Amino acid sequence: MIKVALFGMGYWGRNLFRVISSNPGLQLAAVVDPAPGLQERLAASHPNVKVYPDAAPVMADSDIDAVVIATPVASHYDLARAALDAGKHVMVEKPMCSSSDEAADLVFRAAARGLTLMVDHTFLFHPAVMKLAELVHSEALGRISYFDSQRVNLGLFQPDVNVLWDLAPHDLSIIDYLFQHEPVEIEASGYCHVNPTSPDIAYLTFHYPGSMVAHLNLSWMSPVKVRRIAVGGSAQMAVWDDLNREEPLKVYDSGITFQSEQERHMILPSYRIGSVHSPRLAGSEPLVDVLEHFRRVILGQERCKTDGRLGLRVVRTLEQAQAKLDFSLRRVRNGLAAQQASVVAAE
Amino acid sequence: MIKVALFGMGYWGRNLFRVISSNPGLQLAAVVDPAPGLQERLAASHPNVKVYPDAAPVMADSDIDAVVIATPVASHYDLARAALDAGKHVMVEKPMCSSSDEAADLVFRAAARGLTLMVDHTFLFHPAVMKLAELVHSEALGRISYFDSQRVNLGLFQPDVNVLWDLAPHDLSIIDYLFQHEPVEIEASGYCHVNPTSPDIAYLTFHYPGSMVAHLNLSWMSPVKVRRIAVGGSAQMAVWDDLNREEPLKVYDSGITFQSEQERHMILPSYRIGSVHSPRLAGSEPLVDVLEHFRRVILGQERCKTDGRLGLRVVRTLEQAQAKLDFSLRRVRNGLAAQQASVVAAE
Amino acid sequence: MIKVALFGMGYWGRNLFRVISSNPGLQLAAVVDPAPGLQERLAASHPNVKVYPDAAPVMADSDIDAVVIATPVASHYDLARAALDAGKHVMVEKPMCSSSDEAADLVFRAAARGLTLMVDHTFLFHPAVMKLAELVHSEALGRISYFDSQRVNLGLFQPDVNVLWDLAPHDLSIIDYLFQHEPVEIEASGYCHVNPTSPDIAYLTFHYPGSMVAHLNLSWMSPVKVRRIAVGGSAQMAVWDDLNREEPLKVYDSGITFQSEQERHMILPSYRIGSVHSPRLAGSEPLVDVLEHFRRVILGQERCKTDGRLGLRVVRTLEQAQAKLDFSLRRVRNGLAAQQASVVAAE
Amino acid sequence: MIKVALFGMGYWGRNLFRVISSNPGLQLAAVVDPAPGLQERLAASHPNVKVYPDAAPVMADSDIDAVVIATPVASHYDLARAALDAGKHVMVEKPMCSSSDEAADLVFRAAARGLTLMVDHTFLFHPAVMKLAELVHSEALGRISYFDSQRVNLGLFQPDVNVLWDLAPHDLSIIDYLFQHEPVEIEASGYCHVNPTSPDIAYLTFHYPGSMVAHLNLSWMSPVKVRRIAVGGSAQMAVWDDLNREEPLKVYDSGITFQSEQERHMILPSYRIGSVHSPRLAGSEPLVDVLEHFRRVILGQERCKTDGRLGLRVVRTLEQAQAKLDFSLRRVRNGLAAQQASVVAAE
Repeated sequence: MIKVALFGMGYWGRNLFRVISSNPGLQLAAVVDPAPGLQERLAASHPNVKVYPDAAPVMADSDIDAVVIATPVASHYDLARAALDAGKHVMVEKPMCSSSDEAADLVFRAAARGLTLMVDHTFLFHPAVMKLAELVHSEALGRISYFDSQRVNLGLFQPDVNVLWDLAPHDLSIIDYLFQHEPVEIEASGYCHVNPTSPDIAYLTFHYPGSMVAHLNLSWMSPVKVRRIAVGGSAQMAVWDDLNREEPLKVYDSGITFQSEQERHMILPSYRIGSVHSPRLAGSEPLVDVLEHFRRVILGQERCKTDGRLGLRVVRTLEQAQAKLDFSLRRVRNGLAAQQASVVAAE
Repeated sequence: MIKVALFGMGYWGRNLFRVISSNPGLQLAAVVDPAPGLQERLAASHPNVKVYPDAAPVMADSDIDAVVIATPVASHYDLARAALDAGKHVMVEKPMCSSSDEAADLVFRAAARGLTLMVDHTFLFHPAVMKLAELVHSEALGRISYFDSQRVNLGLFQPDVNVLWDLAPHDLSIIDYLFQHEPVEIEASGYCHVNPTSPDIAYLTFHYPGSMVAHLNLSWMSPVKVRRIAVGGSAQMAVWDDLNREEPLKVYDSGITFQSEQERHMILPSYRIGSVHSPRLAGSEPLVDVLEHFRRVILGQERCKTDGRLGLRVVRTLEQAQAKLDFSLRRVRNGLAAQQASVVAAE
Repeated sequence: MIKVALFGMGYWGRNLFRVISSNPGLQLAAVVDPAPGLQERLAASHPNVKVYPDAAPVMADSDIDAVVIATPVASHYDLARAALDAGKHVMVEKPMCSSSDEAADLVFRAAARGLTLMVDHTFLFHPAVMKLAELVHSEALGRISYFDSQRVNLGLFQPDVNVLWDLAPHDLSIIDYLFQHEPVEIEASGYCHVNPTSPDIAYLTFHYPGSMVAHLNLSWMSPVKVRRIAVGGSAQMAVWDDLNREEPLKVYDSGITFQSEQERHMILPSYRIGSVHSPRLAGSEPLVDVLEHFRRVILGQERCKTDGRLGLRVVRTLEQAQAKLDFSLRRVRNGLAAQQASVVAAE
Repeated sequence: MIKVALFGMGYWGRNLFRVISSNPGLQLAAVVDPAPGLQERLAASHPNVKVYPDAAPVMADSDIDAVVIATPVASHYDLARAALDAGKHVMVEKPMCSSSDEAADLVFRAAARGLTLMVDHTFLFHPAVMKLAELVHSEALGRISYFDSQRVNLGLFQPDVNVLWDLAPHDLSIIDYLFQHEPVEIEASGYCHVNPTSPDIAYLTFHYPGSMVAHLNLSWMSPVKVRRIAVGGSAQMAVWDDLNREEPLKVYDSGITFQSEQERHMILPSYRIGSVHSPRLAGSEPLVDVLEHFRRVILGQERCKTDGRLGLRVVRTLEQAQAKLDFSLRRVRNGLAAQQASVVAAE
């Protein structure tokens, strides 16, 4: 039985609480969160779980084998480092850290001490992503030409992350899992509607070796939630719509076919060319599988699928994209200001 | 009765043929297209329509009042210029010309001779776009923060236009009609999968005065056709899905609302916040209205809604976007080449 | 070249006009319709088509080889009989006649003179129905257990047919084509909201040999149009949604599987069990194929797919269903009246 | 604090367990279920909940104020009667009993002792049903002409209920709540595919006073789950699709409008006539509200919305529908047998 401490009882932390509690191989020994009243609430329903307002008692408790960190991103590094230094296995929420330097340091420390360092990129345990990976790795889709993601909703406007760091980690971890590449070139644009220093809309283009281009349309400004990823290949195309309950994943048996110029004159626009297949997906809750995987990795029974190196690669790409986005935001702001100045001067 | 000559009997030309023929105030006098066998086919069914392989007889025929040009883009300027110089009214397909210089010259010539110069931006006659315009102009949506268009399908890979010039004119004419602005800054990226010098995927970000950002996701590489435009404002958001027959336009009675930091911790993700309204749209065929409008503009009964100046603004923005896109494509190609070289050198 | 006369220029008649005109092997020689102004309109656009206010000149014209009858149902028999007696081939709109006696008489006369008698059950030329037939006949669906059709919309409240005779012919012809059976038992209920003697809602249950049950939910009272047919078999289930443009036909790779009682307690409700396949359907317009088929049948090149005997079987089933429906309507009306009387008596 | 005992830990019982446990005004004191291992499982996680294999200890325990019965239908009456006789408040799953005699007896006993008798018709606490009721009761829909329900899925083929008793209680309770009427006439048909004495498909037509007709299409044979209720009125129509997450309830601003015969000839088929409105629905879990309502009714703070009399009316209608269905099944079976006999005789 692995004894686990959970840091953070926000929205996702409460999910982790439920899932850790229900895993028969894990024992939730402690929860760390300064929220007032938490201790009383948990004392009634879960008398065996200790509640602390800060991390010190957990770090000092040699009975605790592992920690799960679901606090704001800015605190990930300090908590994870302290836990690793105290000899504990670590699972940390995504994005792993605020910078690639921090992430690299954690990877180093975990490796040096032989501890598990896992990042909770939950989507890599989602049945649709695993099916997408199967389609890509088996070359059923053919040669991949693009990955197109639309990930928009009304945002929670979190204090310590912008829309890029909030939403892009999902896509970047999926791309890493599907294609095992980091981007060669990154282009970015966006806009800050609400908070002048924090973009709430971001458009990213990532270029990968071998003619694959990825585009991310991220927004916190859309009342309509969209979670749609299209992966296009020379043989087939797959579209995952995470909000479609009945048929979340569709595989279009169509590719790009070329007609002679003569023929083209005769062709009417058609909406699709081949048949569509919607494979059955297993129905288990991905987070349950994440925690079970964490347990098995700690026990040496499985190789970690979302280890610190994956987390580091995602953070490194986020950093590079942020730099491009900053540059674009500055340039556009200057352009708009210059135009306004010239309008004023002309009056 | 206005006598009209039609240039080009491709896919769209045949639609124009049908619609011109059925307008009781227009008389289709001639068709110009070198396609073999066309003369015979039309002689049987439409004995009163003359068929010419080239433009000269039409230009010389003083009985013909107006021409409709539906030939490849590269020929628009020469044909429209010749027609205007021959004193004929002109309606030309979108995009109006291959360059803004050409477009400006046509605008000048039409103005100088007092002739109608109209561009067939059909979508501005579409009931959904007219409803969108009403929502924007009445400020029902509030202050607009973004325009987001996804316009993807399997492309016909036309010889003389790339995906930008093929698909963006729709969005640019709609943006012009809704917001009456040209962009202040343009950012572009894309990829050439099929033809190495002609992008088949393009991502465009346009920045407009007053905090509005527009994004276009254009592709000829998608077996799934998507035609979706979202316009987000401070009060409401409108989404037009042109492939949804039952409810093409939806207005979401939702805006961005701000919670105190305390409250935010409690909020579960929700898919939408307000109610949704799908207004009834009139069902007439836009192209029928385009031709009737052309007729009335010629007769001085209506002010032209899609005149040469609109066409010029669209072409000018296309040109600027093309320059940005070329720059991006070159930079990325060099980056990929450099990376490949370093890989080779390292081996 | 087969010379054809068309009777009736209502909504469907105008479609027939267009399709007959465009078939190179048919020549539309005459149109019969008393609508004022029709002659003038057609004289301009189609000078070679004669227009008559009544049928006599067509019946007397030995140059006319075939007639297409798209008039109100009540007139089908007289027109078809006169045409057959005049030695002309006949295609008649559905439902074929107002009674099975009429329909049987036409079948007899056509057979006696060796003339083609075809009923325009257009749906049997629809790609989705042909695909459904392929799935049923190849036994891909397994043993069929039900056919379920929902066919509702806002009705045009035609003067000479009720909702049963307006909508059920579609389903009955499809069932005949798929299963080659007439029903053994019929149950019917319905309601007359608008016209007290003509039901605008009808629910029909047809029992067929071999455990197949068919249910039709027909309504003229629904603002939402639904055109959905489900065919369930032991191996697979097919659903055709005629209003779904992208994926009109879906085949669910699921059947009824039986679990032991023990297992059943563990099963959570799930929306579907197997994968879903949406085959590509050919895109041609069914009515074009109907007319081409009529031409070939006349020439002896094809065996008639929707002949008078099929039309007769459909009318016979309509008659039987009408009798059941009348009985139910009477019984319910009496029941309601009795209840009202008892309420009044009790007061 | 009201002490509650729960009978039955099947699928729905486990939901009740969770919801009772989380209601701060209820204390789950005991669970009754003979399932092996249940005692051990609950001892670990919920040491304060007693587990019994049969009902006797609960009935004898005067500390227990109320029971919630989620056992198979056949046992509802005995358990509820024993609990009422022991002076306990009762909430029983739907359908309330196997017969109206049983249901009436429970209503009598509860009334005689002044105890709460509630039936868990959860849907009457569903936000969509409450909104539908508001639309009907405020006469926003106008005069109601029909209620149409399609409720199909792959069934669990429960041992003690058929498809009618499994699925119809939902619709019948909703109809009772919306219209406060019992049917005047009932018509029924169906089929037994799997178990020869228990229908797995049932079609029901209910006639209500005042021209309202209700139709239920119930099936356990459909791999595609459908949960769709349409309520049509003279002013508007409402459609509730329980599987549509984004817009479960749509109100169509359309009614039946009448055109002169002349106009009707001009009308093309259109999919809808007015605009569509999708109101926002509150997001709470209905079962949570059911249990809180039960608590308040016991405390005399609320009048029971789903009391024993409602449960009795639903059971009475089920009984009458079952009789009609039995008659139809017998008649059809005889008809099929007679036909088969005549075929054999003819050979």
